[in-house]
Amino acid sequence: MKVSRRDLLVGAAVVVAGKTARAAQAPSPADPTKVRGKPSKAVGTRAAFEKPQRQPRGATSSGTPHQDLMGIITPSDLHFERHHGGVPEIDPKSYSLLVHGMVERPMVFTLADLKRFPQVSRVCFLECSGNLGRTAPPETTPQQLAGLTSTSEWTGVMLSTIFKEVGASPKATWFLAEGSDAAVLTRSVPVSKARDDAMIAYGQNGEAIRPEQGYPARLLLPGWEGNTNVKWLRRIELSDKPFMTREETSKYTDPLTNDTARIFSFVMDARSLITYPAHPVSVQRGWVEIQGIAWTGYGKITRVDISTDGGKSWTAAKLQQPVLSKAHTRFRHLWKWDGSEAVIMSRAVDETGYMQPTRGELFEKRGPGAAGYHLNPITGWVVKADGTVVYKQEAWG
Amino acid sequence: MKVSRRDLLVGAAVVVAGKTARAAQAPSPADPTKVRGKPSKAVGTRAAFEKPQRQPRGATSSGTPHQDLMGIITPSDLHFERHHGGVPEIDPKSYSLLVHGMVERPMVFTLADLKRFPQVSRVCFLECSGNLGRTAPPETTPQQLAGLTSTSEWTGVMLSTIFKEVGASPKATWFLAEGSDAAVLTRSVPVSKARDDAMIAYGQNGEAIRPEQGYPARLLLPGWEGNTNVKWLRRIELSDKPFMTREETSKYTDPLTNDTARIFSFVMDARSLITYPAHPVSVQRGWVEIQGIAWTGYGKITRVDISTDGGKSWTAAKLQQPVLSKAHTRFRHLWKWDGSEAVIMSRAVDETGYMQPTRGELFEKRGPGAAGYHLNPITGWVVKADGTVVYKQEAWG
Repeated sequence: MKVSRRDLLVGAAVVVAGKTARAAQAPSPADPTKVRGKPSKAVGTRAAFEKPQRQPRGATSSGTPHQDLMGIITPSDLHFERHHGGVPEIDPKSYSLLVHGMVERPMVFTLADLKRFPQVSRVCFLECSGNLGRTAPPETTPQQLAGLTSTSEWTGVMLSTIFKEVGASPKATWFLAEGSDAAVLTRSVPVSKARDDAMIAYGQNGEAIRPEQGYPARLLLPGWEGNTNVKWLRRIELSDKPFMTREETSKYTDPLTNDTARIFSFVMDARSLITYPAHPVSVQRGWVEIQGIAWTGYGKITRVDISTDGGKSWTAAKLQQPVLSKAHTRFRHLWKWDGSEAVIMSRAVDETGYMQPTRGELFEKRGPGAAGYHLNPITGWVVKADGTVVYKQEAWG
Repeated sequence: MKVSRRDLLVGAAVVVAGKTARAAQAPSPADPTKVRGKPSKAVGTRAAFEKPQRQPRGATSSGTPHQDLMGIITPSDLHFERHHGGVPEIDPKSYSLLVHGMVERPMVFTLADLKRFPQVSRVCFLECSGNLGRTAPPETTPQQLAGLTSTSEWTGVMLSTIFKEVGASPKATWFLAEGSDAAVLTRSVPVSKARDDAMIAYGQNGEAIRPEQGYPARLLLPGWEGNTNVKWLRRIELSDKPFMTREETSKYTDPLTNDTARIFSFVMDARSLITYPAHPVSVQRGWVEIQGIAWTGYGKITRVDISTDGGKSWTAAKLQQPVLSKAHTRFRHLWKWDGSEAVIMSRAVDETGYMQPTRGELFEKRGPGAAGYHLNPITGWVVKADGTVVYKQEAWG
């Protein structure tokens, strides 16, 4: 699309009359050049004018404020949180991880032990599988719509390294991961994921993992539903069958319309979220950069389509490089808004060829009894004629 | 190199006798599974046990604690800082940027104006060109040796977009960038950098740029010495010659041995830093993962060589993917330490074929009067027989 840069700022920037306008700076509370600034300090803080916040939903969940964020890295203190028994406080000196079951050598690893193994880092997203309410009011924000996904650079040891260390039996096909929170959260995970890309992570965005992310160490299963990435990991037991914990029987399964249910539906399907413009911002007529994030548990995002006419026509957005596997990918699309009401939507396509479904397509498979997990329909925002933006409501079914 | 994983943990991990040892977890102050954890909150904090800190050097500088960090992203509150007049407090509502000089339309941009332009993000390092003391005691840490380099994901608008907006004259070859701090820091920058990859950045690691990084907006010149990346940017003036400010005449030039001096030596040459093992950690005999960061202002790091015999022989380390242009690249190398004193060193090679020089090679070009800018010699650490690690001191010349 050809864009005149002049168009972008019509009515916004001030053209200075003449070339000597050095004093054109807007008045500030105090001229900062006339005051010695603050000295260096050991740990920085945000500017007093910036107050991005997670929005707690009760005591056990809070979402990332995607409407306030840029790029793909989520600041660690704004990474979404979801826990079933609160955030435990664990002294790293007394932390230990037991690995036992179908192994040659059951072992207990301290945190220092885990850190002595070869290290690996990767940027990837984590998403709670319950990251969409089926209904939402017009005043819904990106944070409320899909705040339970975040991206960090994670660091730790490959789980395959630990499995070699303990001599995992070739007959072991599943393992139990157990957390040391008050919920003692447990999930069964196929050993094949350990052979692929599972990690035990103790680092997040360059530093020690944050308490609500599993300090001092968590399971990290790139691309898989958040709940299986067991935090505050204290025990791994290898077996030749799944453990059928309550988190995978009564919870985290997906009823289907044929009277069966999907169980162990681990991988998060492709999804996208327009973060700008979105409620509660307003836009001005003219060029607007629609942008947002897309992600898939199956690898890389290959395309994000944008519609500005409620889904009738679609145009491929630009993807911000680098596009990393199983990580948020930022997309951008310049749109010349003519000032009439419009519905903007995005849909993600991943490297398997999968395309994010419409709500109708998803309902057809899940039916009215969908449990609320793994719902990734195309969503949209209504840009009203006055420039305000609201969530585009759609009935579930 | 073939590594037995069993070797790695000899004497460290506890082999559990029998497979029923479920209670093998080390005792903690309180069993976290018996106590409801903390509720979700709007903004997270570090674990109470983790206290990474920048180390202020006087009031105008503080270094990133590389010995504590993992991966490539530097947490924003640990990004190094360097300023000549302290950190100003600027109300984003009164921020403005004047662009004038050899342009068709001198203009003043508010922060909101800058944010209306198409956005771009990139991960890159920033390094102060004074990031090495020529002499340092054995107790020097990675932070003290090279703490004035950090990597962030920066977001903003391409400077070329702004230059199109104001109609930069094709005859303009330089521009002045001026900060609104108490130093009113000014540098001359070739317009060619604006045509290449210069940005005006207002975002850092997903959120608004931090105060000590230039809030609310700074110049970002990927790969160029930190001082030219003018923070708190308030004015850009285009010209057909450099402005010869004091920051590029009396400061930030490099005397050479032939009685001339390099001026406008913008690009940061390739350098590497072993962050582990390094003072003040101790290591145990056996497998040790040597790791650290390498970077170059010329593009991508293509190789990092490791020596464990004081520079006699070198082996290529593994580079952590993704390797991004003008960004810290993490390298890793497994070393079996036999317990005798050893000198470990790293040297970076970049995509231009440039290899990080020895101290002798650098001294030959810069001589005894080197001003302390752009010093990137190979550095090393002495691993003593008792496992303690100290900085390998070398004379300057």
